[in-house]
Amino acid sequence: MNQIFSDRISDVPKSFIREILSTTLHKDVISFAGGLPNRNFFPVEQIKEASQRVLDQYGADVLQYSMSEGHLQLREWIAKRYKEKMNLDVHPDQVLITSGSQQGLDLVGKILINERDHVAIEEPGYLGAIQAFSIYRPTFEPVPMHFEGLDTDVLKEVIQGKRIKVLYTVPSFQNPSGISHTDENRDEVAKIVSSRQTILVEDNPYGELCFTEKTHKSYYTRIPDQTVLFGSFSKTFVPSFRIGWLVAPKELYDKLLIAKQASDLHTNYYAQCVLYQYLCDNNMDEHISAIREKYFNQKEAMIRSIQKHFPEEVQYSNPDGGMFLWAILPEGISAHKVFHEAIKHHVAFVPGDPFYVDKKDINTMRLNFSCVDEPTIEKGISTLGKILKKYVAEEKAF
Amino acid sequence: MNQIFSDRISDVPKSFIREILSTTLHKDVISFAGGLPNRNFFPVEQIKEASQRVLDQYGADVLQYSMSEGHLQLREWIAKRYKEKMNLDVHPDQVLITSGSQQGLDLVGKILINERDHVAIEEPGYLGAIQAFSIYRPTFEPVPMHFEGLDTDVLKEVIQGKRIKVLYTVPSFQNPSGISHTDENRDEVAKIVSSRQTILVEDNPYGELCFTEKTHKSYYTRIPDQTVLFGSFSKTFVPSFRIGWLVAPKELYDKLLIAKQASDLHTNYYAQCVLYQYLCDNNMDEHISAIREKYFNQKEAMIRSIQKHFPEEVQYSNPDGGMFLWAILPEGISAHKVFHEAIKHHVAFVPGDPFYVDKKDINTMRLNFSCVDEPTIEKGISTLGKILKKYVAEEKAF
Repeated sequence: MNQIFSDRISDVPKSFIREILSTTLHKDVISFAGGLPNRNFFPVEQIKEASQRVLDQYGADVLQYSMSEGHLQLREWIAKRYKEKMNLDVHPDQVLITSGSQQGLDLVGKILINERDHVAIEEPGYLGAIQAFSIYRPTFEPVPMHFEGLDTDVLKEVIQGKRIKVLYTVPSFQNPSGISHTDENRDEVAKIVSSRQTILVEDNPYGELCFTEKTHKSYYTRIPDQTVLFGSFSKTFVPSFRIGWLVAPKELYDKLLIAKQASDLHTNYYAQCVLYQYLCDNNMDEHISAIREKYFNQKEAMIRSIQKHFPEEVQYSNPDGGMFLWAILPEGISAHKVFHEAIKHHVAFVPGDPFYVDKKDINTMRLNFSCVDEPTIEKGISTLGKILKKYVAEEKAF
Repeated sequence: MNQIFSDRISDVPKSFIREILSTTLHKDVISFAGGLPNRNFFPVEQIKEASQRVLDQYGADVLQYSMSEGHLQLREWIAKRYKEKMNLDVHPDQVLITSGSQQGLDLVGKILINERDHVAIEEPGYLGAIQAFSIYRPTFEPVPMHFEGLDTDVLKEVIQGKRIKVLYTVPSFQNPSGISHTDENRDEVAKIVSSRQTILVEDNPYGELCFTEKTHKSYYTRIPDQTVLFGSFSKTFVPSFRIGWLVAPKELYDKLLIAKQASDLHTNYYAQCVLYQYLCDNNMDEHISAIREKYFNQKEAMIRSIQKHFPEEVQYSNPDGGMFLWAILPEGISAHKVFHEAIKHHVAFVPGDPFYVDKKDINTMRLNFSCVDEPTIEKGISTLGKILKKYVAEEKAF
């Protein structure tokens, strides 16, 4: 039977995260491994009210087949928010509602990637993007991340040597690293990309979860004709609705719409209407403020615990937003081995491996702080610290 | 910019139906062109109750990320119904919840179709399947439909001459033709396919909407290891939720699950829970009975009007279920031309062209009866009849 499968499906990496999550679900495990938003902020009552109001007001209208572009008023809301929050001029006709931003990745893959086309992706990078694009069998060109953003020397080299169709990046509070591209880095990246026929995919699921007043300008302000913006309601509203969106220049939009239609006709329209009703009836800014404050406090707690317990040889990011923090161990220490030791002591995190296209036993680890309370953070990081100290001492002795 | 697009996206046929739908949306047009279920059967109040109950009982649990396989209890419900209604042994672990069965098509394309692989599809066939598979650039091998089902002579020829990876069919109350494969036809098709490494995709969105007691056995009873079954709640519950499913043998299931995860992580979990709650609290059999009765009466009204008004040279199907009826005009008459004439007289239908892989100005037409009441059916068919008589007379004179 094996020979019946397409070549592409064997290229898709299995989700290691999915596998390790099962080992971390036990009640007594302190898990920094997840990537889930904190469920305490899910507006259960408000969603109940919105569901009722939508059905009372519109009845069967919200239950029929609908447009592939998505709910017009929701697209207008998104366009308006871009203007208000980021001073971006986005027309609702450029907004395509997707079944989570994961689907946006699939659609971009569908319309842009031929087999063996070159796709540049930041490294470490978002695993879901690697999986989604793998279906279309590109050659991945990893571009390393520094604490300031993309390594522009490597990017320049890669982009000059090869025809890069897509550059995929999460420039704000990245998953997995928590790092944001500085404005200088963005300027330079945009300049490099602008000289080429490359589409920059700016995936921005965490942008609203910023801990400071300082905001970074989207690539869309720099190279609008080459940028596809992704957004998501999974981290500011709820994930189970699977509602995200993308913003694309007209020519790309038309093709993305064809791909969307072929993929699932349209995103759940009842859910789009409930979400839009929620947005009308509630103060999204206040809601997001509360999430920011909580995540900020948890991040601060994690930083304090790291300073206290981690050996000084370990480097780490101090994110200005999002849900993740990144630690870099001294070279030669496999975070994978640390993971197996840690799980014996009931602490979990994600070792860096799955965030690299083709590297193994990497010395990096992703620590999620959105779902763990402050005392538990201290406890878990303290345990991790002991293990790391042992490994660092061994490495030195070696 | 054009050279940036993947080769595949230019292969996807535009949805002609989508285009003509816009011309048929005017209030004064009698439309047999749609493919929508009748909105009078959407259980608005029950969905409101189910939404509330789910949030009251489970709160944030139904709002978090969830499993790619789909809601376990919903999958169990589906497996149980297969047993009850069709005496099929399906394990819940074989059921994958999809974002509508359109997504099932995309997933099958992802895991099975390499460029230029041969995909057999009934002709006329479901446009959405042609669109979804086109993304993966197969060579389509059309297999004509007769009033009894697939043309087995052609199927035999095609399957012996070429390696057919996928045979796509809607064997019950097909869209667009309303035709069902007879049991004899199914036996023969299964026999032909069983000798080959071919996956038969049995798409069955209308199976529950049967007008008689007589049911046809699924291909799954004949060739379970080679059959992927598709199902949908769009026609028995509501379409806007975009919830369908597929049933696949283990080896295929594992790959389909990877493809599902890469495509959108999982289907809206809140919606899955609301649907499951609805199924628990309501009598689905009674609900479906009511739809059947209504559609049957509308179909009967359409048949009566056709007998009265269409020229006798026009052949037509008399479906035992579903939402569509198929008319075959004398050779040489383009249903496309008839459509343009009909729309001037405020009557719409879908000319056959989009249901063929590579034919134009076809002499067939799809007539939808699910959304039009009986007096309107009589009025619209009578108008169509006059136009058809004119065309038939002209064709004879010619």
